[in-house]
Amino acid sequence: MNKRLTKLMDWMREKDVPFSFITTPENVFYLTGFRSDPHERLLGVAVFPEAEPFLVCPKMEVNDAKNSGWSFEVVGYTDIENPWDMIDQRVKSRSSSVQRIAVEKQHLNVERYEELSGRFPGAAFIAAEEKMEQLRLIKDQDELARLKKAAEYADLAVKTGAEAIREGKSELEILAEIEFEMKKQGIAEMSFSTMVLTGKNAASPHGTPGASKVQKGDLVLFDLGVVYEGYCSDITRTIAFGEISDKQREIYETVLKAELAAIGAVKPGMMAKDIDLTARRIITEAGYGEFFPHRLGHGLGISVHEYPGITEKNELRLEEGMVFTIEPGIYVPDVAGVRIEDDVYVTADGVEILTSFPKELTIV
Amino acid sequence: MNKRLTKLMDWMREKDVPFSFITTPENVFYLTGFRSDPHERLLGVAVFPEAEPFLVCPKMEVNDAKNSGWSFEVVGYTDIENPWDMIDQRVKSRSSSVQRIAVEKQHLNVERYEELSGRFPGAAFIAAEEKMEQLRLIKDQDELARLKKAAEYADLAVKTGAEAIREGKSELEILAEIEFEMKKQGIAEMSFSTMVLTGKNAASPHGTPGASKVQKGDLVLFDLGVVYEGYCSDITRTIAFGEISDKQREIYETVLKAELAAIGAVKPGMMAKDIDLTARRIITEAGYGEFFPHRLGHGLGISVHEYPGITEKNELRLEEGMVFTIEPGIYVPDVAGVRIEDDVYVTADGVEILTSFPKELTIV
Repeated sequence: MNKRLTKLMDWMREKDVPFSFITTPENVFYLTGFRSDPHERLLGVAVFPEAEPFLVCPKMEVNDAKNSGWSFEVVGYTDIENPWDMIDQRVKSRSSSVQRIAVEKQHLNVERYEELSGRFPGAAFIAAEEKMEQLRLIKDQDELARLKKAAEYADLAVKTGAEAIREGKSELEILAEIEFEMKKQGIAEMSFSTMVLTGKNAASPHGTPGASKVQKGDLVLFDLGVVYEGYCSDITRTIAFGEISDKQREIYETVLKAELAAIGAVKPGMMAKDIDLTARRIITEAGYGEFFPHRLGHGLGISVHEYPGITEKNELRLEEGMVFTIEPGIYVPDVAGVRIEDDVYVTADGVEILTSFPKELTIV
Repeated sequence: MNKRLTKLMDWMREKDVPFSFITTPENVFYLTGFRSDPHERLLGVAVFPEAEPFLVCPKMEVNDAKNSGWSFEVVGYTDIENPWDMIDQRVKSRSSSVQRIAVEKQHLNVERYEELSGRFPGAAFIAAEEKMEQLRLIKDQDELARLKKAAEYADLAVKTGAEAIREGKSELEILAEIEFEMKKQGIAEMSFSTMVLTGKNAASPHGTPGASKVQKGDLVLFDLGVVYEGYCSDITRTIAFGEISDKQREIYETVLKAELAAIGAVKPGMMAKDIDLTARRIITEAGYGEFFPHRLGHGLGISVHEYPGITEKNELRLEEGMVFTIEPGIYVPDVAGVRIEDDVYVTADGVEILTSFPKELTIV
């Protein structure tokens, strides 16, 4: 039994939960090592405090599941079989009484909930999210190695983007060159839709890349990441195309100062909110408080956005092994949008920065 | 009130459903014209048989929603506001008694279900999926125009891929050239992860593109599509790189014969299963029945896979306006994987093929 499963089983014993059914592809990957996205088909791992777990997946994925290192039972079903009957029988043979079931309430849909509640009438449903978040919060060395590798590719992606900037090129063309380079490097998946935003688009908190062309005097914002062996990176850099105005430069320097200060503040034992507030104070004092409308950062791992949020209210104490982003931004409509983002790992006495593309203003 | 909403309201009256809450981004787009993917945040449209609908979305998307042409109320919430309280109040002011609520049971999660059932105690939950599927089943002329445009880009993408084939190039490199070209054309989103599979990978029903390099004598399988103004295309072509074996050619010709026969059979009034069986019979008679393990096709529209499935069991009668894929395939491990797929529109007396890349064996 791997440590991750053992910890979940400990929690189940403590909470008197005889059966957990975990269905998000991310948490199934975390617990089993099997990475799959079966879309509308059912994928799940059933965990019991005193019996062996089993994995449920479409029949055509059974071999992949076994090859991924999962050593317990794998239950495959075809499109004409009912996986719930197979689950029902196996759960009942492992646990004589199921009065409480832990599920991911933000993922399990009503149809599946009705399948389960119909088979275990009267069972209470317990949210498994918080426990799974806690388990995933502290990264082990294997996870750290993958996150570092993902960050290296993100650095290369930004470099590719910066080098692709030319007068008259569109955001989508630059974006295409970045993803082309990533694919050539063997990266099959970006961790989210790559953002290349120029000028006014970057200054809108919700811009999407399109046919807008870069022009001299623009700040070009890159926000992107890759998935490497199941782990995500997430980097933002804002690059100047030619000479920019004093106002744009002031905004850039303010964001950079806030970002560096926030990174410098990270230490185990402090509260998450104090990193946010470190950056927010600098931006507010410079007069741009209202133009920094989002949290400072978010946890990073199997998901590109995961627990914890680095917000001005989160009192979570930092611990060695946490990985999150630090990404202050200032967006002044029609003037400039600047965000600078790194991925950081909390060490025993401070912080290790995983992303490393230069942050002093790059002018191309 | 648009026709789509009116039809949903008619159904609600008939089924005695005073309140529908539709939450999939696809169905919200279909009913409102507002296309958004708010990830973990709540997006929904509330519909009532005798009152005006309203849309719920994150506050930062309210302007986009209004600009998309939605003329009814838009309720925006910030990350620190509870959208359920806002919904509760508005529903209760529109409907005095909510004993039945239609939701998408395959999408609404348990957490949201609990929010709703807590506010409307004792209300029965009705599945809205089937009705929404029915509404989306018949495409109007505006939808057809977008689907055609999406198909044109898919044709171009295959052409780009075929031209990119060179000895020693990897699947991912070819894939990158395709997506690069699409981005240059202004296509921001593929309709699913582009597949470029060569040789043995194509012969596995579950191959994923990787570092495998194309070699002379390979059949290279392209399966891809784009999203154009919210509508998807989906095409598969299998291209020969250099001379292929007689066995590979036999497999190719069998798939092509099955595909052409299936397309030729499409007519309003026939059952969906009879198209599947037309193709399946040809493949089975050629001795490859066991190597055609999937359904013949699937509906296509806002989703790349939507209702109906073109399976050997579906007795749905075809009607003018339906759009689906026809994609027979034969996968013989270590020998060849061939699939040929077109998107078709059912006309008043037959079929119009939306995708048009040539299907006679292309050798590059």
